[in-house]
Amino acid sequence: MVKTMEWQGQSLLLLDQTKLPSEIITILCKDYRRVGEAIKRLEVRGAPAIGAAAAFGMVLGWQELASRYADFSQETLLIEFKKIKNFLLSTRPTAVNLGWAVEKIYKHAVAMINAQQSLKAIETSLGNLACKIYQEDIEVNRRIGIYGAALLPQQARILTHCNAGALATCGWGTALGVVRQAFLDGRLEMVYADETRPLLQGARLTAWELIEDNIPVTLITDNMAAWVMQTQHIDSVIVGADRIAANGDTANKIGTYGVALAAKYHQIPFYIVAPISTFDFTLETGKQIPIEERSADEVRLLHSVVTAPQQVNVFNPAFDVTPGELITGIITEYGVISAPYIENIKKLQKILQEED
Amino acid sequence: MVKTMEWQGQSLLLLDQTKLPSEIITILCKDYRRVGEAIKRLEVRGAPAIGAAAAFGMVLGWQELASRYADFSQETLLIEFKKIKNFLLSTRPTAVNLGWAVEKIYKHAVAMINAQQSLKAIETSLGNLACKIYQEDIEVNRRIGIYGAALLPQQARILTHCNAGALATCGWGTALGVVRQAFLDGRLEMVYADETRPLLQGARLTAWELIEDNIPVTLITDNMAAWVMQTQHIDSVIVGADRIAANGDTANKIGTYGVALAAKYHQIPFYIVAPISTFDFTLETGKQIPIEERSADEVRLLHSVVTAPQQVNVFNPAFDVTPGELITGIITEYGVISAPYIENIKKLQKILQEED
Repeated sequence: MVKTMEWQGQSLLLLDQTKLPSEIITILCKDYRRVGEAIKRLEVRGAPAIGAAAAFGMVLGWQELASRYADFSQETLLIEFKKIKNFLLSTRPTAVNLGWAVEKIYKHAVAMINAQQSLKAIETSLGNLACKIYQEDIEVNRRIGIYGAALLPQQARILTHCNAGALATCGWGTALGVVRQAFLDGRLEMVYADETRPLLQGARLTAWELIEDNIPVTLITDNMAAWVMQTQHIDSVIVGADRIAANGDTANKIGTYGVALAAKYHQIPFYIVAPISTFDFTLETGKQIPIEERSADEVRLLHSVVTAPQQVNVFNPAFDVTPGELITGIITEYGVISAPYIENIKKLQKILQEED
Repeated sequence: MVKTMEWQGQSLLLLDQTKLPSEIITILCKDYRRVGEAIKRLEVRGAPAIGAAAAFGMVLGWQELASRYADFSQETLLIEFKKIKNFLLSTRPTAVNLGWAVEKIYKHAVAMINAQQSLKAIETSLGNLACKIYQEDIEVNRRIGIYGAALLPQQARILTHCNAGALATCGWGTALGVVRQAFLDGRLEMVYADETRPLLQGARLTAWELIEDNIPVTLITDNMAAWVMQTQHIDSVIVGADRIAANGDTANKIGTYGVALAAKYHQIPFYIVAPISTFDFTLETGKQIPIEERSADEVRLLHSVVTAPQQVNVFNPAFDVTPGELITGIITEYGVISAPYIENIKKLQKILQEED
């Protein structure tokens, strides 16, 4: 299976997802700045993958600080490390896993400094923690996949939007992890993949990674999703998430909301698939989720091809928010959460706090 | 304003809509075969424009027959003319205006032959009839625009899908005719235009013709429509139609159905705008409307740019059917038709029969 990223101890190797499927190119990130650039440019994308990449970016940042500031005070080190954290945090606003991962690394560094550990010991420990975040993401996806596949009928016909696959995570995938497990279980008939304009993550990434694994896939344009539900016997819609509020409202790639509305009308179960790092318990509703707006040229141009008048005004939100009332269930590594969301997400939060 | 086509007596000049907005190129059709090709290739598209182009194609066909078969029997002439009609009918299956226009020309020819008119007189008369179809389409659009604009509030914010504009008709437009009239009346604030994948008629044609007329337009990808309704205060959705069944079910460009579902959820009025030539009274429901499927490469490639794995399976229906229950009203040159559709469309049909 495809590898989204590879940690090399002093650098992070990323698969350049902007070039797929035409070219399979990797990017060697030797410092945290290049990792941040890669996140901004969507060379690495997908909420869990962004989280892991940013964790490795934090390690690269620490390594740089440790080599430059060996004689400086712990206070200075932490101030500088916080700047690196804030830089990485600023690269994309919507996916909460990014914040979750960099805070985890940062807090660990603070604790070790307070415990008077050596810079070298901290470096090693942060590296291990980032690797653990990476490894756990794959294991979590495997667990999620099992919970999700159990919800599907035999000969399941699935519709998905964007790419919540191996490429969006450290491996296996969230929505596509469910698809992979269903395929392994012999209960998958077809995946309909929305191409996902403007950047075509569905056409370029989902179609590609499913074909690589010999999983049956049919590509459609986004505006066909409702008609496919009406005519092609879809059993479930399964998508990923970038941030989930405490009431179940879910930010995900633009277009998810429209797909959820169509699923509701056709009485097709609509599932969000996400690790618990995607929950933002501090937000009461989806209205508080910051929605990234990206460049107009993403819509006006496709590579060098002009697809619209160059001066045309464009609205280009990268995400939308699907209200909890449209979501049949949220599939996590702790099982499937369903309505009433406020109550059940509180229960999840309590379990997590007790584990901490 | 832009001119979709121009009749030159012995040839038809078409604006090549596949090249817009990058290039403004015309195609000189000297025979009916080239007109048919232009319809197939979408060089001319939009149900009313296809109808008028095909009518001129019939005239070119008659001219060719008249010059080649001057000494032949009337019977042979009609057999050959019917072949030309069937060829033009076969170019695209969904838009009913195509059939409406070529049947009109054909029946007129039959009547004149039966009335022992000369070939030359018939040629002149068919040319006049095609010009009348062309002229009437523009006048009809103007009337439709007035009926439609009256339904809109002040500072109206409209969402539209595909191109039902001047380019889709002989001029002025159906959905965009309403927009133009509202703009003239000073009650239009913004038009959101879905780009309309795979062939981008919204981005390439709607955005272009509105900018040409200084009408405020914001381009979005198709998958943003629901989110725009949620966040951008849309007052009405206004789209064209390719065929309307006797119960109000309406075939229009793929994606219309999803937009209608989103409008329903947001309680936004959803209007179909179409001349009465778009009604197919012979079909009880939309289930009987033939839906054209087009080449997979329309989705896999954009011009020469690869947008998906080349071997990926694709579903590419060019149209979908929006059930009457999702349609607030059908705006025609006879006024606005609303539910109950079966009853009210029957009334329309009766009026038309009495006029005949």
